[in-house]
Amino acid sequence: MIQCPRGTRDFLPDEMEKRRFYENKLRHTAGTFGFREIETPIFEDAELFILRSGPNVLKELYAFKDKGDREIALRPEMTAPAIRMFVNNMSNEPKPIKIFYFGQCFRYERPQSGRYREFFQFGAELIGSATPETDAEVISMAASMIKALGLKEYKFRIGHIGVLRQRIADAGVPADRAAEVLQKLDKKLYDEARPIMADMGVTDEAMEDIFALTETVGGVEVLDRVPGDVGDYLRQVVGFLNAMGVVDVEIDLGVVRGLDYYTGMVFEAEAPSLGAEKQICGGGSYTLSELFGGEKVFSTGFAIGFDRILLAMEKEGQVYEPKGIDAYVLSVSEDMRLKAAEVVASLRAADISADVDIMGRKMAKALKYASSIKARYAIIVGAKEMEDGCVTLRDMSTGDQELVKVEDLPARILG
Amino acid sequence: MIQCPRGTRDFLPDEMEKRRFYENKLRHTAGTFGFREIETPIFEDAELFILRSGPNVLKELYAFKDKGDREIALRPEMTAPAIRMFVNNMSNEPKPIKIFYFGQCFRYERPQSGRYREFFQFGAELIGSATPETDAEVISMAASMIKALGLKEYKFRIGHIGVLRQRIADAGVPADRAAEVLQKLDKKLYDEARPIMADMGVTDEAMEDIFALTETVGGVEVLDRVPGDVGDYLRQVVGFLNAMGVVDVEIDLGVVRGLDYYTGMVFEAEAPSLGAEKQICGGGSYTLSELFGGEKVFSTGFAIGFDRILLAMEKEGQVYEPKGIDAYVLSVSEDMRLKAAEVVASLRAADISADVDIMGRKMAKALKYASSIKARYAIIVGAKEMEDGCVTLRDMSTGDQELVKVEDLPARILG
Repeated sequence: MIQCPRGTRDFLPDEMEKRRFYENKLRHTAGTFGFREIETPIFEDAELFILRSGPNVLKELYAFKDKGDREIALRPEMTAPAIRMFVNNMSNEPKPIKIFYFGQCFRYERPQSGRYREFFQFGAELIGSATPETDAEVISMAASMIKALGLKEYKFRIGHIGVLRQRIADAGVPADRAAEVLQKLDKKLYDEARPIMADMGVTDEAMEDIFALTETVGGVEVLDRVPGDVGDYLRQVVGFLNAMGVVDVEIDLGVVRGLDYYTGMVFEAEAPSLGAEKQICGGGSYTLSELFGGEKVFSTGFAIGFDRILLAMEKEGQVYEPKGIDAYVLSVSEDMRLKAAEVVASLRAADISADVDIMGRKMAKALKYASSIKARYAIIVGAKEMEDGCVTLRDMSTGDQELVKVEDLPARILG
Repeated sequence: MIQCPRGTRDFLPDEMEKRRFYENKLRHTAGTFGFREIETPIFEDAELFILRSGPNVLKELYAFKDKGDREIALRPEMTAPAIRMFVNNMSNEPKPIKIFYFGQCFRYERPQSGRYREFFQFGAELIGSATPETDAEVISMAASMIKALGLKEYKFRIGHIGVLRQRIADAGVPADRAAEVLQKLDKKLYDEARPIMADMGVTDEAMEDIFALTETVGGVEVLDRVPGDVGDYLRQVVGFLNAMGVVDVEIDLGVVRGLDYYTGMVFEAEAPSLGAEKQICGGGSYTLSELFGGEKVFSTGFAIGFDRILLAMEKEGQVYEPKGIDAYVLSVSEDMRLKAAEVVASLRAADISADVDIMGRKMAKALKYASSIKARYAIIVGAKEMEDGCVTLRDMSTGDQELVKVEDLPARILG
């Protein structure tokens, strides 16, 4: 028996209905923020992702040659494609440009709880602006989305990669080796960072200073420890966030984010219920367009791990109840089958979700099926009732039955 | 500059809004028919598609080995994945099972008008029933969908592959070479079919008989020329279709469909506006599950070429107008920026799509931007008006301005 490939999933109707429901909540929230949806291809020139993430990304990429010998790769994320699209098609449009996207991404890694080889990401990019309001706007949308999904326990942490980059550069870390150090700091692996930094000539004192910076965590008052523009900047971001009703944020200068292209504010949201793999959202301000042949343009964006956040909601006990259909139509006898077809068509034309027996089942079996597909009503089409233009409307939850004229059915069902 | 791969597309916001609008019409129509959405992975074990379509499919597949040396392929269609999913996960559920799906498919072929390497398909499968009503239900949904999209010129043609298969078998075509003959008949390439069939020992008379059958086209009355069960069966299908209000169908026994797994009724819809590549929808009844290790189950399904049908609508002059946003908020002075943030947040909380100036633009420039993103209203936050809890509401189409209390904005904008 052929199964779906390892690390991928089939979504059955109940699960899919739930996913679409929440996906549309994200889409709707993005709409209220004036973000507009885009879509890019499932695969891209592999070079695009290498330019964004460095050659290391190759080991996790689904990369292959197409029949025209092009190196292509299934997208592992959608920021690079979105910015490529901006460079190709949107760079002359009035700024700022606010776009979002939702879709499958692919990463070849060991599948585990909440991590799949085919996973779903929601993301947004605000392109062409670099102000505290820009960053606040983006964080505020991320927070509104998580709230719209109904997740209760989550924490936003806001940092600034610029201050850390400056500090490690001042301490003597060469620019081309900064990523090495930042990766260790991201995971708070100070013991592993020490020999690397020592090797680069960083003094013990400078090192401890840097480690202390990454441990700067707390309310907006911890920014007093961050001299200069960065402290002011983040204070303004928090000010705008508060004005927009986003009050539950923490400053954490230990938020590093793995990637080179982040330039300033960086943020993450986590759901404690998820344990070790608790990050549900991450983003920050960056420039990427110049890598893809465009002009340098400042942007702020984020991505939400859709699978991960659904898992967090589930762990909190949130349950989605599939809706079922409005009506199931069945005929009591063979000669009423065409009539039943007419009735179901009239319901559908009135925007009612209605199904009809197509297997010629006896009534008891047909009602059992109607119940299994969660029909609210069964509509029984009999010859005698039809003489008066009526059918029997049966409430599937109570079993109550009444005669209703066919033309009154829509109002009766929708009312 | 990196471009999107050949045969793939970026969908910019206006285009994407239009696509989602029509995609949701399809989804909604499927819902009124009691079909429920599923989703399967973007790639599958390549074997799945070879089992369905034969080894010939390989030359059009995006197939590759993953890092675990598995032969995988981007899906070229979604019937096989849907039926695989049914076999794996849904075979014990009450029948019939009504599912639909929408998503990207991939075919390595020369891109041309309305044909892409990454294309979008909507499809539905009704699994576990084999009655005239089953076929009518499926055709009726396809017709409702095309109607819901607003396409004006289209034609449904209904045939039956069973009668043709029987006839060519009776004429001496071996079962394992039937596909060869059917492919020629599908394209009405009689001159190419003749030597092939002669080689199989088919007499000239039998041949002309078969060709005549594939030319059986017209109203339900042409079924008089089809003796036996098939004629009766199709008459019943048409009867149910008429009862459901689908009257504009044509019988065409020349509808062959390329694939081996079709068993009985087959149908196609075409949009004449598209010229040579005019097919927008195709389907029929089939069995496929037994090929994937399940029990043999009769199903009827169809797929709609989403890109192709959008092109047909466009050729008919159908235009989608992007909606734009409700309100754009700007502040007249630096000290009102936090207030503006408050105002925009209050609008969004009231489910209004609202944007806010984040670039500190002067009023004229900010209004110009508001107009470029099609904002219905601009909301101007000034210090003096704010003393009375008011802002200036500017109707962007007329230029009319009025003072409105902040708390009255949602009602004013939505009303």
